[in-house]
Amino acid sequence: MILEINVGLDRVGVLPGRDAIELARATAELDGLELVGIMGYEGHLLRVEDPDEKRTQIEASMKLLEETRDAMRGEGLCCDIVSAGGTGSYQYTSDCPAVTELQAGGGIFADPMYQLQMGVTGLEYGLTVLATVVSRPEKHRAVLDSGRKTLSPDAHLPLVKNHPETEVVRMSAEHCELQLAGDAVDLTIGDKIELIVGYADFTTVLHDHFFACRGGVLEEVWEIAGRGKLQ
Amino acid sequence: MILEINVGLDRVGVLPGRDAIELARATAELDGLELVGIMGYEGHLLRVEDPDEKRTQIEASMKLLEETRDAMRGEGLCCDIVSAGGTGSYQYTSDCPAVTELQAGGGIFADPMYQLQMGVTGLEYGLTVLATVVSRPEKHRAVLDSGRKTLSPDAHLPLVKNHPETEVVRMSAEHCELQLAGDAVDLTIGDKIELIVGYADFTTVLHDHFFACRGGVLEEVWEIAGRGKLQ
Repeated sequence: MILEINVGLDRVGVLPGRDAIELARATAELDGLELVGIMGYEGHLLRVEDPDEKRTQIEASMKLLEETRDAMRGEGLCCDIVSAGGTGSYQYTSDCPAVTELQAGGGIFADPMYQLQMGVTGLEYGLTVLATVVSRPEKHRAVLDSGRKTLSPDAHLPLVKNHPETEVVRMSAEHCELQLAGDAVDLTIGDKIELIVGYADFTTVLHDHFFACRGGVLEEVWEIAGRGKLQ
Repeated sequence: MILEINVGLDRVGVLPGRDAIELARATAELDGLELVGIMGYEGHLLRVEDPDEKRTQIEASMKLLEETRDAMRGEGLCCDIVSAGGTGSYQYTSDCPAVTELQAGGGIFADPMYQLQMGVTGLEYGLTVLATVVSRPEKHRAVLDSGRKTLSPDAHLPLVKNHPETEVVRMSAEHCELQLAGDAVDLTIGDKIELIVGYADFTTVLHDHFFACRGGVLEEVWEIAGRGKLQ
């Protein structure tokens, strides 16, 4: 097992320092458990805007893990694993020497939320939902068959792939409304649109499968086995 | 089939009047289709605060359906079904004489959103999620194992059943934070809490089963067969 340390997000985990060491010592004495490390999540620092300030604060947060690791080792306790990081911070956290493992799971999709709100760089958007135009009430307005039960707008609204000037302006339970611009004004009922998911976490849990494409070709269908299993 | 008429929500459906009649006439001539009625959803009126004003506006919206029905019948077209209403409006829409069918599906759960934001009366909250206390960092703060992947805060935050003074103050992907008051300050890690779902639509799609209780006894387990099937 690894102990979760509260490095500032202030949600779960034991406080670093004396509390952490006491818990580590008590845990190591329990039968049937093997203490192998610690983890901490600097989730409260994802939205620090200035890159230098973000780096400084993340380093301070990781320092708490490093000091806890050193204190554990000083007591002869095992601390081989120091796990940290999320997609919104891993490009800084990975430079912290104490960290042995990153938890940047969402990074595989590189959502607009991470790239546009948290300064994650050098990646491409990886997750879209295929939607169909079901209504064209006005020249610059289209309604799609994908609402909040299909695609979460929480954290960041979806973007419209291949139509960067066209915007999602409203999402209700079963519908998504677009303000059309550029050549998207030629869309007609039945046309397909790819919506780039703003934040994958709340959308993947709504679906049963990923359709994995490379170069426009469907290569694999993967079951989302974990959905509905939370809590 | 029934035709959807745009009665003001301005999302999907054909405009009432000439457009609707032309479409009805054209539809009735198609092989393999049987036109039996119309529907319209007054979803844009759910949040009208003044009850008299809400009734007046809903009646005007339903009048559009009634006139369309009369015009269809005048042309010898079938319009036996006039379907309308949602949970936030059905207590008014059900008084409109033209309406033959209500679509108030969410009403079965009578969510806080409907009761506290849309003036739906005379019902009890019907849907909760069972959560577990996983952290008690301070005397008046508890963290639960149910976040936005388990329970949507969209539209209305969850309420805390049996602890009306205790409030949900933050929800992240996997956690829900409570500001404790009253006897809830005695909660300890491992305790169970029932969270009253603020708006059922976005929460039921996250789960595979309903657990149906009567008088505190579990009587049935129902599969949520439609989840993940939208779009």
